[in-house]
Amino acid sequence: MASYEPLTQSSAVALAKRLRIFEEGAVLASEEIGHGKLNLVFRIFDEKSNRGIIIKQALPYAKVVGERWLLTLKRATIESNYLLRIAEYVPTLIPKIFYLDETLAIKIMEDFSHLQTYRKGLNEGKRYPSLSKHIGTYLAKTLFYTSDFGLEPLKKKLIMQSFSNPEQCKITEDLVFTHPFFDNETNKYEQELQDDVKKVWGDQSLKLEVAKLKRKFLTEADALLHGDFHTGSIFASETETKVIDPEFAFFGPMGFDIGQFIANLLLNMISKEDEQEHEYLYKHIEETWSVFSSTFTRLWQTASVEQYHNSQSYLDYVLKQTFEDAIGFAGCEIIRRTIGLVHVADLDEIQDNDRKISVKRQALTLGKLLIKERTEILEPRILRNYINETQYI
Amino acid sequence: MASYEPLTQSSAVALAKRLRIFEEGAVLASEEIGHGKLNLVFRIFDEKSNRGIIIKQALPYAKVVGERWLLTLKRATIESNYLLRIAEYVPTLIPKIFYLDETLAIKIMEDFSHLQTYRKGLNEGKRYPSLSKHIGTYLAKTLFYTSDFGLEPLKKKLIMQSFSNPEQCKITEDLVFTHPFFDNETNKYEQELQDDVKKVWGDQSLKLEVAKLKRKFLTEADALLHGDFHTGSIFASETETKVIDPEFAFFGPMGFDIGQFIANLLLNMISKEDEQEHEYLYKHIEETWSVFSSTFTRLWQTASVEQYHNSQSYLDYVLKQTFEDAIGFAGCEIIRRTIGLVHVADLDEIQDNDRKISVKRQALTLGKLLIKERTEILEPRILRNYINETQYI
Repeated sequence: MASYEPLTQSSAVALAKRLRIFEEGAVLASEEIGHGKLNLVFRIFDEKSNRGIIIKQALPYAKVVGERWLLTLKRATIESNYLLRIAEYVPTLIPKIFYLDETLAIKIMEDFSHLQTYRKGLNEGKRYPSLSKHIGTYLAKTLFYTSDFGLEPLKKKLIMQSFSNPEQCKITEDLVFTHPFFDNETNKYEQELQDDVKKVWGDQSLKLEVAKLKRKFLTEADALLHGDFHTGSIFASETETKVIDPEFAFFGPMGFDIGQFIANLLLNMISKEDEQEHEYLYKHIEETWSVFSSTFTRLWQTASVEQYHNSQSYLDYVLKQTFEDAIGFAGCEIIRRTIGLVHVADLDEIQDNDRKISVKRQALTLGKLLIKERTEILEPRILRNYINETQYI
Repeated sequence: MASYEPLTQSSAVALAKRLRIFEEGAVLASEEIGHGKLNLVFRIFDEKSNRGIIIKQALPYAKVVGERWLLTLKRATIESNYLLRIAEYVPTLIPKIFYLDETLAIKIMEDFSHLQTYRKGLNEGKRYPSLSKHIGTYLAKTLFYTSDFGLEPLKKKLIMQSFSNPEQCKITEDLVFTHPFFDNETNKYEQELQDDVKKVWGDQSLKLEVAKLKRKFLTEADALLHGDFHTGSIFASETETKVIDPEFAFFGPMGFDIGQFIANLLLNMISKEDEQEHEYLYKHIEETWSVFSSTFTRLWQTASVEQYHNSQSYLDYVLKQTFEDAIGFAGCEIIRRTIGLVHVADLDEIQDNDRKISVKRQALTLGKLLIKERTEILEPRILRNYINETQYI
């Protein structure tokens, strides 16, 4: 096939056969398992052994709100480049890649369909005893080794060239940092929230802080980010964790991936009434940050290429700045997941409408406070005060 | 010519003839006018009319301290790309480009040999009544129009691709932000300064702040910088100003160009005993910043593509941050020009040795204070206190 064409279940099977990925005599079947808005995802498997592979193909448009947004297929290349680059640092925490086709925007990966998205599992009340350790390690290693601390600057700037991702960054710039803070047609929210939303749009001191955070996202090329690090981009079981979908990868501020992760745990937390569930999620956030900072510190001390790495106070400064940024970015993510174009099931699927509205109000207040008071939130523990404070508003 | 070869006076004349730049019958002569360490610069002129052109060719090495440092010829392409890009914004403040050859790393430009470098003119006590207005305008326009405020983010990221300049950035990272703060073999300073230099190397709170500034230089892709904006990169007369030599151009923090300019005026100032000369230079710094900030403000209000541009407090924040960074970068530049590899004539050519040493001591103290206290230096006027304070140490 010379030019781009979307796969069907049967052409996906044909591709797997042509590439001789399965043993001779395998009886191949396929299922479409993608629920994403931007890609086709098939699982092709041998009906006898049930062993399979995942075929992912980028679509040239996004299926959102009935419309089709044009998207660049280049993002499939970015995604592959990201996975190949970080395989060096966190090989067990991403799916193995077997095959790439840039023209067709196709990637064939290790089967991870026995896992479930972390978001779905959390919403079903599942437990993930290894996850925060895995994610803390993932974040520390991918961010350290692609920053100027872990990568010689000449090499870093060459690598950056293959991660220029303007179209995908533009989506985040608009949907995370801009549209939710203005009366924009892409925003989606319940009628009951109209007054709360207007307060967001009219809050000039909030918008000043969001503008600063947006500027960081636009200009600070700290390290290679996943770029869309929410709980739906993580597949997990009790023992395994696989990070997927790095189509938004680019060199950006280190706090961004961390902040999106924290935000999505906080969104899950406020969707739940059970205090024990809250406690469980606090522990996840605290352990993730603690593993992140201890792993980052160890790498800083043993693998730094930066001549200033002997300064403990410089390390402290970098970690503090990263956490502060993460909290600010988390605030933006919480607000955009509540009133922006792309919501989360955690909030939208709350059955009781009054509760849903009141939780979304809490989300807006929480988001605003995280953004405005991020310089005072020095460690994850302090987040507890913010959840408590915003609970009955 | 198919491959790179350095020009001679006669091959430079031959090139001008081949390109038919001069009228038929012109009697061409040539002079080598380059005193730079990295390039050959010839003036080719018609002996009858004395009208000429400048031919600049990048060398694949730097002539420094007897050694030859390998340099990339790509910098000639970067330089041309920069001049072509900013010609749109400040056409009268750069030389016109007539011809480019990437393979030979050659650029043919408008003759500006009737002008003199601003550094040399200042050292000779010349006056430049138009210069600070020109430079303030130059900085405001080049920085605004290439930032996310003046350039649509999709377009900015595409343009950034052609300004990746790792090798030249590395020179600045080493020579401005690293080597002068460690016992590095590239450093050069008088024996009498040994104790002062050791104090710089041992000053941990200074080094923390320099590390933060270096990180900004490494990671903040704010706007397209000239990258080497000292008084030797500016040719001027009473009425004309031409900025040259943007071989270090890249997307970096807006304060960097401004800071290098301020630093080089301060270096000139402390080299002089006459209070009137000081006053003249203060005025230059103050007017440059005032023209910069009023021009930047006008562009922000009339030509911004950023949705948050309605916020006056955001503009205030950006200007304040830019000035703070500029002062920090100025401190680094002052220190490296005193004890690093590449000095300035302003200090090195002070005839009285005792005075030279005492001025260099002042430079070190001044540089340290600017770096450490940059958050408190809110406007150029305050620099007067720092010069006075450090005068008799």
